[in-house]
Amino acid sequence: MEFNVNSKVLEKLLSKIIPAIPNRTPMPILENFLFEISDNQLTVSATDLEIALKASINVTADENIKMVIPAKLLFDIIRSLGDAQIHFQTEVNAKLIMKTETGTYNLSYSYPDEFPTVPVVPKDNLISINGALLKKSIDQTSFAMSKEDMRPAMTGALLEFSEDGLRFVATDGHRLVKYINKSIKSDALEQYIIPERAITVLSKLLTDSDVKIHLSKTYVSFHIDDLEFISRLIGEKYPAYSSVIPLENENQMKLKTADLLSAIKRMMLFSSANSKQVRFTISENLLEVSAEDVDHGSSAKETIICDYAGVPIVIGFNTAYVNDVLSHFEAKEIIFFLQSATKACIIEPSEQAANEDLMMLLMPVRINN
Amino acid sequence: MEFNVNSKVLEKLLSKIIPAIPNRTPMPILENFLFEISDNQLTVSATDLEIALKASINVTADENIKMVIPAKLLFDIIRSLGDAQIHFQTEVNAKLIMKTETGTYNLSYSYPDEFPTVPVVPKDNLISINGALLKKSIDQTSFAMSKEDMRPAMTGALLEFSEDGLRFVATDGHRLVKYINKSIKSDALEQYIIPERAITVLSKLLTDSDVKIHLSKTYVSFHIDDLEFISRLIGEKYPAYSSVIPLENENQMKLKTADLLSAIKRMMLFSSANSKQVRFTISENLLEVSAEDVDHGSSAKETIICDYAGVPIVIGFNTAYVNDVLSHFEAKEIIFFLQSATKACIIEPSEQAANEDLMMLLMPVRINN
Repeated sequence: MEFNVNSKVLEKLLSKIIPAIPNRTPMPILENFLFEISDNQLTVSATDLEIALKASINVTADENIKMVIPAKLLFDIIRSLGDAQIHFQTEVNAKLIMKTETGTYNLSYSYPDEFPTVPVVPKDNLISINGALLKKSIDQTSFAMSKEDMRPAMTGALLEFSEDGLRFVATDGHRLVKYINKSIKSDALEQYIIPERAITVLSKLLTDSDVKIHLSKTYVSFHIDDLEFISRLIGEKYPAYSSVIPLENENQMKLKTADLLSAIKRMMLFSSANSKQVRFTISENLLEVSAEDVDHGSSAKETIICDYAGVPIVIGFNTAYVNDVLSHFEAKEIIFFLQSATKACIIEPSEQAANEDLMMLLMPVRINN
Repeated sequence: MEFNVNSKVLEKLLSKIIPAIPNRTPMPILENFLFEISDNQLTVSATDLEIALKASINVTADENIKMVIPAKLLFDIIRSLGDAQIHFQTEVNAKLIMKTETGTYNLSYSYPDEFPTVPVVPKDNLISINGALLKKSIDQTSFAMSKEDMRPAMTGALLEFSEDGLRFVATDGHRLVKYINKSIKSDALEQYIIPERAITVLSKLLTDSDVKIHLSKTYVSFHIDDLEFISRLIGEKYPAYSSVIPLENENQMKLKTADLLSAIKRMMLFSSANSKQVRFTISENLLEVSAEDVDHGSSAKETIICDYAGVPIVIGFNTAYVNDVLSHFEAKEIIFFLQSATKACIIEPSEQAANEDLMMLLMPVRINN
């Protein structure tokens, strides 16, 4: 079998597929690309059994072949060649020979018998969404996914089709983000949970191009230009998150996102490593944030001007969670909806963007005295 | 005690001193800045007992004081304040209070009794050198310092005053770099060995400004603008490196640095993890480089045009060392001086820069068959 390919063209193709190669795996076969040449089309795929990536280019080959090639080595070689014409050729004993004008490179390939099958997602259940919008939706919510395996559903991001719109939800029990894209409405309520690894890889793959999404009970596939990205779904029930969102938080505090975020970054330096606590002391038009590290004998407080006409409230939060939540608001101004020191606090942009509904929720922590 | 300082001014001062703060140390006192206010001058210093940094600014203070302040915490706070006027004030019980327009930050400081004394280097033995030139000299040589503690002298860089000029030498026994700055000549031969950590920190501190260097038997100090950098010297005898430099390597191979370097980077992908070997097969005007990884069944070879009229030679090197050495040549063209497969190989730029003499040496490795 022989074919020619430009190194830059092949590098571009491989760079799209390599994110599916696992860093560490007990199954060495997963550290390979599957090369399939069929009717002058070269299809490269890779999978870690949770996600898979697949894309094709046209080549002129004299035979069809399937071979399994060490991914990292091949990618590094192709990248190191700069811009060169490469002649690929297979020989007996599973040898792959690549020739350029000045060099010859030999690799061993394996036969594809043991390479796992990349799942095929039925094409019936289709939605289409702009790539940049999908990226924004997942980037704004996914930080709140749980890092703990205790409740597998919460380690993923929820994609929920509803009458309101397409909802993206993530929570770890301490904070919750709900982002609704109102332009994609659905009569039936359907829930899909996408694992963390798929979310992380997907965020890097997305461009301005429209994305076609196919969903089944067990898999989701994303078509981004000529690339197909497939992920297993988490087969668990997502917790009934609506029940933790308070309906009546009548005390509203409006302030500039940047003012509070910069104060919180300083409070992170002072809140003690154990409690990671920051205290909000809210009175008429004035927020005082304070933190203390008893072990190191250090403390800090700052005052921030805000719009507030509610009852005075003293409420504690985990400083790192406040920082995470505030860092994910694009809005210049946000509103805190508060009830009391023991009730969940809701944060929303002071003005929602068109066709969007974004809400973040923070659980308070009991204040140390 | 009270004084005012702008956060940007203090941040600039602290950023110069913080490189001397050790990342890990069994002596917690070293994780602090020493603040000394004396006659309206604030001097900040830090040391890890091997190196020390020291610089001053003018402030208007009502008293003199010495205090020891947690370095990382203070630096992070000052950085996080953006551009603000800070009022410093000490209180009883070793409390330091910093106030800005909107915030109050309290820290505990310690008394300086246990803070190690920063050594004073006598001002008599002085040389002056351009900072950029000194940086080039150490960056071009220091990569070859030994990473192994077996022979402490080789873990540092040698600074050698001689009749030829100021020599910078580093070697780990596998490769050697000798760089001579011919503009600084000295009648007496003097050797000083600067430790690796000092070299690394110094390289980052150097600018275009002239540097004043003072040397004693045990310490070296570098004055860079208003900053003083002091390092302990390694009190060992440097190995007699001249004896390993061959005098008669009559076979000369001239080639483009970039051509060989790019081929070597590809050979690194193929040379086996154990031997890390690359083979140079040199014949008339042609160099073939090749590498093989028997364990993975992969191999590579490339041909490179060169100027060579000597006897045919086949010689092996450690691929990573060839890569290191070639990466540190600024010259577009280099010459290999070879004798045989078992003799050290010398590499020099095809044209030496004015007032410079640069030589790198590579020990060959025995070729596997």
